[in-house]
Amino acid sequence: MSAATYYPQLSPRFSQVVAAARGRRIAIVGHARPDGDCIGSQVALARVFETLGIESVCVNPDPVPRRLLFLTPGMAFRRTDDILPVARDYTAIFVDCADGARGGDRLRQAFPAPLAMVDHHLSNVGFAAHNLLDTTSAATCEMLAGMFLDNGLTIDAQAAQALYTGILTDTGQFRFASTSRRCFLLAADLLALGARPSEAGYQLYERETPGKLMLLQRYLASLQFECGGRLCIGTLPPGIFEETGSTLEDTEGLVDYARAMDGVDVGVLIEERTDGTVKASLRAKNPAYRLDLIAGEFNGGGHACAAGLNLKKDTAGFYDRLVAAIARQMAVVDAQGPARA
Amino acid sequence: MSAATYYPQLSPRFSQVVAAARGRRIAIVGHARPDGDCIGSQVALARVFETLGIESVCVNPDPVPRRLLFLTPGMAFRRTDDILPVARDYTAIFVDCADGARGGDRLRQAFPAPLAMVDHHLSNVGFAAHNLLDTTSAATCEMLAGMFLDNGLTIDAQAAQALYTGILTDTGQFRFASTSRRCFLLAADLLALGARPSEAGYQLYERETPGKLMLLQRYLASLQFECGGRLCIGTLPPGIFEETGSTLEDTEGLVDYARAMDGVDVGVLIEERTDGTVKASLRAKNPAYRLDLIAGEFNGGGHACAAGLNLKKDTAGFYDRLVAAIARQMAVVDAQGPARA
Repeated sequence: MSAATYYPQLSPRFSQVVAAARGRRIAIVGHARPDGDCIGSQVALARVFETLGIESVCVNPDPVPRRLLFLTPGMAFRRTDDILPVARDYTAIFVDCADGARGGDRLRQAFPAPLAMVDHHLSNVGFAAHNLLDTTSAATCEMLAGMFLDNGLTIDAQAAQALYTGILTDTGQFRFASTSRRCFLLAADLLALGARPSEAGYQLYERETPGKLMLLQRYLASLQFECGGRLCIGTLPPGIFEETGSTLEDTEGLVDYARAMDGVDVGVLIEERTDGTVKASLRAKNPAYRLDLIAGEFNGGGHACAAGLNLKKDTAGFYDRLVAAIARQMAVVDAQGPARA
Repeated sequence: MSAATYYPQLSPRFSQVVAAARGRRIAIVGHARPDGDCIGSQVALARVFETLGIESVCVNPDPVPRRLLFLTPGMAFRRTDDILPVARDYTAIFVDCADGARGGDRLRQAFPAPLAMVDHHLSNVGFAAHNLLDTTSAATCEMLAGMFLDNGLTIDAQAAQALYTGILTDTGQFRFASTSRRCFLLAADLLALGARPSEAGYQLYERETPGKLMLLQRYLASLQFECGGRLCIGTLPPGIFEETGSTLEDTEGLVDYARAMDGVDVGVLIEERTDGTVKASLRAKNPAYRLDLIAGEFNGGGHACAAGLNLKKDTAGFYDRLVAAIARQMAVVDAQGPARA
């Protein structure tokens, strides 16, 4: 085990959260379309709470994705409808949520006064009694792992695997700019506690379906270049999931193919829904592009390098408006000097 | 810096190699179609030698791949033809070569008595005066990094980045079964010495070309399932590189798409060449499939989970013979019990 202190500022504050949680029933609230960092954070916090005798339940508006089910055996995951009738019996801790509405308006209203939130998103301005925010962290799981270790709390093998998975997925397999020495030291610690990288890799990246590969082929064929080749956008038309035998979950990772093109600074995935709404995922190679702000123009949010949006109305001309917004930010970046050091 | 001793057995022997190398000119020999672990090992060893006043040159039968050029600024890389006339002036150290012929027959003959070899391949039986072999290591770069650190040698930022890159690529981005706690501890140490994960990730995985994506689309469309869905094979027909505007290098990583299918135990990429020869890359999710032995049946070799072969004659019926060989090994594995614990 490392003797490092990972979060000298936050770890004492986490200890206060634990003290405040004792004797209460805790709802550990995640966000819509939960990812590895969200589910990993929920599983790990719930298991650590269990060792402390704190009863908890994990709550999400959407189900645990198929490829993350390996993290949740024996864990109590509830949907919004399950928790609303009994919400007043629970005290909420939000994890990996940039704001109180990331779990949907109904969960926000059900838990108007969260005890704490643990998060790493740039746009988070705090919405709980205890706001544990660290935007230098690659993952909420990184923060939790560090704070658990700093406080000498018990991390069992399932919690270690959950925390490792959150770090793995939110660093893009240790590849994004947020990947720090601390990520690797924590990964080493988590392996010593029972995390299994090959099992996580297998469950996350080696259980593809023929439908997913069909969807990938269609996405690749749809790629268009804008802004002189610096922006690459692929579009999934309405009805493509039925057509290819794929699911909404299968879109995960597609946008990285656009981002990964040589010369491309920003990659985009646009999903056009049969109900007329539009969803977009934005990924940049450099945080200077501030995709959180661009997504914000369309009522979305996220990180500087990874953001998303859901447009429910005024979707006409969305493609062109998005290209224009990104082109404007590219001009800002260019005026500031070279984007890549 | 970690206080760990990474290779208690090998590090003293590496120190002997360094002592024997002093006062000589060293040829650091890699293998054909060099990968990140090969080039990374060569760069790192050459730079450490330079700090020790040992002159060296890196030698490969093939050029440094485009996406690995970020590791080699200022480094002396030579091809086989360059070194043959002056080979007798050099003492050879082979890195990442399972045997002395991995750099081609001409390099083997040019250096009949290598001073040392550093390698991690299962099939390596030793072919140098000092055989530094560790098959528990995920990468030759992992071994070198550990032995450098254990011996207190100076690793500059370029060497750190080279070593990090070898660990990154040979673990499949920290995903293969070989990914150990030692890999993560070394990665943390290398970051402290100047390795930059996001730069490595960018150079390796975010500089794709339209030709590469075309090749990927064609490979995905070619996938066929054998052995009741446990074997997935994709084939690139002769002339496809010209057709798609891609290069030989662009085949890297394709086979992982076949391996990554749910229910698939073994993925294969077959390249049919215009000259009638055939190349195949084999990848398994579990080392029980012993792909090194299967490749060996076709004059190839490698690791238990990742092997390759080049068939120059008797290529008729290769597909069926390969399927039969893999089916036989699957039957052996099945008889031994569940492949996945």
